[in-house]
Amino acid sequence: MQLGMIGLGRMGANIVRRVVKDGHQCVVYDHNPDAVKALAGEDNITGVSSLAELAEKLAPPRLVWVMVPAGDITTEVITQLATTLAAGDVVIDGGNSYYRDDIRHAQILADKGIRLLDCGTSGGVWGRERGYCLMIGGDADAFAHAEPIFATVAPGVDAAPRTPGRHGEVAQSEKGYLHCGPSGAGHFVKMVHNGIEYGMMASLAEGLNILRNADIGTRIEKGKGDAETAPLANPEFYQYTIDIPEVAEVWRRGSVIGSWLLDLTAIALHQSPELSDFAGRVSDSGEGRWTSIAAIDEGVPAPVLTSALYSRFASRRLDEFADKALSAMRKQFGGHDEKPGE
Amino acid sequence: MQLGMIGLGRMGANIVRRVVKDGHQCVVYDHNPDAVKALAGEDNITGVSSLAELAEKLAPPRLVWVMVPAGDITTEVITQLATTLAAGDVVIDGGNSYYRDDIRHAQILADKGIRLLDCGTSGGVWGRERGYCLMIGGDADAFAHAEPIFATVAPGVDAAPRTPGRHGEVAQSEKGYLHCGPSGAGHFVKMVHNGIEYGMMASLAEGLNILRNADIGTRIEKGKGDAETAPLANPEFYQYTIDIPEVAEVWRRGSVIGSWLLDLTAIALHQSPELSDFAGRVSDSGEGRWTSIAAIDEGVPAPVLTSALYSRFASRRLDEFADKALSAMRKQFGGHDEKPGE
Amino acid sequence: MQLGMIGLGRMGANIVRRVVKDGHQCVVYDHNPDAVKALAGEDNITGVSSLAELAEKLAPPRLVWVMVPAGDITTEVITQLATTLAAGDVVIDGGNSYYRDDIRHAQILADKGIRLLDCGTSGGVWGRERGYCLMIGGDADAFAHAEPIFATVAPGVDAAPRTPGRHGEVAQSEKGYLHCGPSGAGHFVKMVHNGIEYGMMASLAEGLNILRNADIGTRIEKGKGDAETAPLANPEFYQYTIDIPEVAEVWRRGSVIGSWLLDLTAIALHQSPELSDFAGRVSDSGEGRWTSIAAIDEGVPAPVLTSALYSRFASRRLDEFADKALSAMRKQFGGHDEKPGE
Amino acid sequence: MQLGMIGLGRMGANIVRRVVKDGHQCVVYDHNPDAVKALAGEDNITGVSSLAELAEKLAPPRLVWVMVPAGDITTEVITQLATTLAAGDVVIDGGNSYYRDDIRHAQILADKGIRLLDCGTSGGVWGRERGYCLMIGGDADAFAHAEPIFATVAPGVDAAPRTPGRHGEVAQSEKGYLHCGPSGAGHFVKMVHNGIEYGMMASLAEGLNILRNADIGTRIEKGKGDAETAPLANPEFYQYTIDIPEVAEVWRRGSVIGSWLLDLTAIALHQSPELSDFAGRVSDSGEGRWTSIAAIDEGVPAPVLTSALYSRFASRRLDEFADKALSAMRKQFGGHDEKPGE
Repeated sequence: MQLGMIGLGRMGANIVRRVVKDGHQCVVYDHNPDAVKALAGEDNITGVSSLAELAEKLAPPRLVWVMVPAGDITTEVITQLATTLAAGDVVIDGGNSYYRDDIRHAQILADKGIRLLDCGTSGGVWGRERGYCLMIGGDADAFAHAEPIFATVAPGVDAAPRTPGRHGEVAQSEKGYLHCGPSGAGHFVKMVHNGIEYGMMASLAEGLNILRNADIGTRIEKGKGDAETAPLANPEFYQYTIDIPEVAEVWRRGSVIGSWLLDLTAIALHQSPELSDFAGRVSDSGEGRWTSIAAIDEGVPAPVLTSALYSRFASRRLDEFADKALSAMRKQFGGHDEKPGE
Repeated sequence: MQLGMIGLGRMGANIVRRVVKDGHQCVVYDHNPDAVKALAGEDNITGVSSLAELAEKLAPPRLVWVMVPAGDITTEVITQLATTLAAGDVVIDGGNSYYRDDIRHAQILADKGIRLLDCGTSGGVWGRERGYCLMIGGDADAFAHAEPIFATVAPGVDAAPRTPGRHGEVAQSEKGYLHCGPSGAGHFVKMVHNGIEYGMMASLAEGLNILRNADIGTRIEKGKGDAETAPLANPEFYQYTIDIPEVAEVWRRGSVIGSWLLDLTAIALHQSPELSDFAGRVSDSGEGRWTSIAAIDEGVPAPVLTSALYSRFASRRLDEFADKALSAMRKQFGGHDEKPGE
Repeated sequence: MQLGMIGLGRMGANIVRRVVKDGHQCVVYDHNPDAVKALAGEDNITGVSSLAELAEKLAPPRLVWVMVPAGDITTEVITQLATTLAAGDVVIDGGNSYYRDDIRHAQILADKGIRLLDCGTSGGVWGRERGYCLMIGGDADAFAHAEPIFATVAPGVDAAPRTPGRHGEVAQSEKGYLHCGPSGAGHFVKMVHNGIEYGMMASLAEGLNILRNADIGTRIEKGKGDAETAPLANPEFYQYTIDIPEVAEVWRRGSVIGSWLLDLTAIALHQSPELSDFAGRVSDSGEGRWTSIAAIDEGVPAPVLTSALYSRFASRRLDEFADKALSAMRKQFGGHDEKPGE
Repeated sequence: MQLGMIGLGRMGANIVRRVVKDGHQCVVYDHNPDAVKALAGEDNITGVSSLAELAEKLAPPRLVWVMVPAGDITTEVITQLATTLAAGDVVIDGGNSYYRDDIRHAQILADKGIRLLDCGTSGGVWGRERGYCLMIGGDADAFAHAEPIFATVAPGVDAAPRTPGRHGEVAQSEKGYLHCGPSGAGHFVKMVHNGIEYGMMASLAEGLNILRNADIGTRIEKGKGDAETAPLANPEFYQYTIDIPEVAEVWRRGSVIGSWLLDLTAIALHQSPELSDFAGRVSDSGEGRWTSIAAIDEGVPAPVLTSALYSRFASRRLDEFADKALSAMRKQFGGHDEKPGE
């Protein structure tokens, strides 16, 4: 099967390599010619230098995967494809688009008879080897047309033991991809996936931080607080120096919190027990925000997911004015001066 | 009436002045002789240089107010008073003691026939003029003995309009003091008061921070995110430069959030619209922690109060290792580097 | 001065009465003729039965206050006014509109030369007597035209003691109204006000709930947990039966959390110490949601305000499926059955 | 090797079976004779009817595993063992004891020369087959004595692929057990493990709830709110009916949130897509509370872990008085009546 790929960043290039390894052919384009060159030499990969050339090299009905950063760039590419491709073609947006943009983008393409599949793609830098978990929205026929590619990109059924209770024919979901519903449904499910990811990451991170400070009783004198600071009432209970990399490792076997994120955390802690390569300014890339907004719109509580999001904001000191306001109030009512840095 | 005062810091000294202004006599002691000197010259105030001298100068049954920083120092003073005072005397602990300590302290004194009243004291540096809100626990007879002093220290009924629906005789609570129950009940109620205070302060602070960033659409380019950062989808909705001191002022009249904390915030913002005297390292002094622990012990949710507490911890960067762990995970699964400071 | 009022619900009618008491004249309209009749008999109030008649009875440049429920109804009225009023007229939207709608509405009117002022109005059912706190956005000239009405509707400078440090001429904000910026700025500030309100309300509510359960040690046996339930480790610390109405009352005088919301809570608790008229299904009316969305869009943490919002959702059992999922997981990994209702 | 086991509930019995399968011999006791009978017939398992008999049947230095519900029962058993066992013996507390109790229990036993190992045991009902993740605190020599049993009970190195970067000899942690530090360290680490578990569970649960309500736009009319309720501004974005069991399944392969908890969730959802066996009253069993208290004592933020805990409390309606207070305040300031059940 032929696949056009637009966008040859880390994710796009890895998907191409996974696709051709399975016997498919790829025509690849990136606005950066060097990215095209880097891939074009490989088996079954043809590089092109424009969208027009990409369209030309693919036999209709064409299948084109767009893997560019979300936001205005995606809109730009979609708009160009609306004039470059032809009725009957299928476009996959595999990036991190907001599902609301999918609905708009699908309409732009639908006006030309082109169908858009929105495809949430999880797996990160490990996906080339492990396969990517794919959550897909859009027209069912378009999905059926593209399914062989999804089956190739996904991890496949062997990636996990079968869920007890499942019998007979292997379902789509068990192969690692799922048609979730109409336009936007794929990115909606992926958005919530990332929201959960934020929550799980924060769960681990907060827990590790509690372990790390289990020695605080050795660092703070008992009863040594003042009117400004809470004394540690019971230093005798915080005398532990925990070997955190080993704890992460032991949890990997048999514990309830076993997870891929824990596996990755164990790698990172083994490399650097102090995580000294990091300053602790945690980025967020959209889906966590959108998940919280969805919860609010729906009127359902998501305190854990939103707390995880806000912690990232706080890690970047975006709460500074709020904190100053708190200190200012304390000064006003209690005459409390701020204490110097701890 | 005679009152002994131990501890002549900001709060202790102001209470003494409020008490003598009402015609009572005070015998005052502080471990720092200068603090004693500073007060001792004034009308109806006698300075002493030891607890023994304090006991001697007071006619039994003595009434002694202890106003020292909470924690081990309070325990020390209580323990000394157990041997210095006599059966029938009454001790008031007006500091920020943990109510659980009160129960222990009360027992130490009870063994000598001395009764302890725990007295949560709210009002800050304004209390000398406004009066202090007093929440008292302990023996009812001891409370009755000390009540004239509480009535003097409290703001009195005129400090607020009568609650609609209340008629007839003015209740204790309407005078600004309340016997809340047995030992510890006073500081328990004060603890919860401070927990609420944390939540209200954070409510104001977070809201002001949202107002302050209402101009973010003028600072960030539309759609200019990347795989690491969420772009601002709708900068057109964040184009406001809000005059925050004026907003705080307008809210003081007729709004639902009118409050003393808002009044203080308005003062602080009028003094410095940027709150530039503060770095935003917010202290916490015990009660906020204890309130959350009480909620957890009781099994009742207190997400707002605890969030307010955790924000203070975060303002002091005590989440650093957690944040590093998040960045480390992102690096592991997505190859994401941390972005430099914003 | 003449004012047209559209919408004679609780708020609209009270504002009209406040305006005429100050010597202005009102022409009033409601889609419900009975509401018009109820007011039309009073001094300086003229009832009309259509928007056209309203326009006719007002001398240009007209000033029309719209006080209808937010959402589609506001859009409908604004759209009608665009054809009923004339260039130079000024419309005030005093309802709870989303500030983003203001921007759209202002454009609809601006196309006809009519100017829209968005006016956040706080004060509830007490506003008629206390005056309303007004936060206004839109064109500065339009604001100047309407200012006498705002001055009348607002509480006025005497509603609160002057902020220490403020001298000389009384500022707009000190009279209880404020021109906050261009279109939408008024409702943006009001939105954040309500966000803060949610946080403050939740702070009080959580604190009262902790007080109420301070007797849990008398209700639960020590150490009587099982593998499914945490036992109460220290029942001796939860033996207090707190008189909650009296606590709310005592906090009204001299405490740090003194506030109008506390005053109202004291009234409610005095009426019914058990609050037995309420089931605890707490509504939310938009601004709390929008405030959290603004925080997320701006990238600033608002854990307290959002927690307060989510608690309201949870009070309406909108977390049911999430809770079932938790019990289902516990059953899967630990064989734990749900415990029957407590 | 010989092991005494006290407590033959689900966990105790499964550990015994796992231990004897590996060639060790067990002497087993439970206060319920039927539980003893159920096991006593099996190979290498000897049943006894008293602690004295248990001690008698084991050769010194004895190794005795206590697997009883935490709290007072553990203290009782430990106290009995202090008189039944002899100097040099080793006791393992494998239950969910609070680490602070371990310190006390260790002292009770140390007074008789007996050593206590506290052993956090994770794995639930699956542990018999998968092995249990073991986190151990206490004396290093005692740990060395018991290590063969821990190695048998733990999952072993093959339970997970080796962490990239680890080379050479297999570490303790890689076999699934870890000596974490002195008395209490094992249960401290287990406590934090469970805290993380709460956070991860809530992350999944909240996410699933957001998916489930992705169809809310089909259930609520646009703009149909009133002064009491927020209307759904954009129903067109909430038109998805998500097949939640299939989503849980697809996430199991290749996604970032792959985890054992997700595997279990997939099982539960496959069994009952509506999770109709559950009412959503979620228990909590101590460690989640203790983790939050540890965070508070240490002064580190744990908003995600504590939010997860509070959600469980709320699922059991323990916030009822708080919710009533909110409705009461809304009634007071806005005249809002509660809306009937949704």
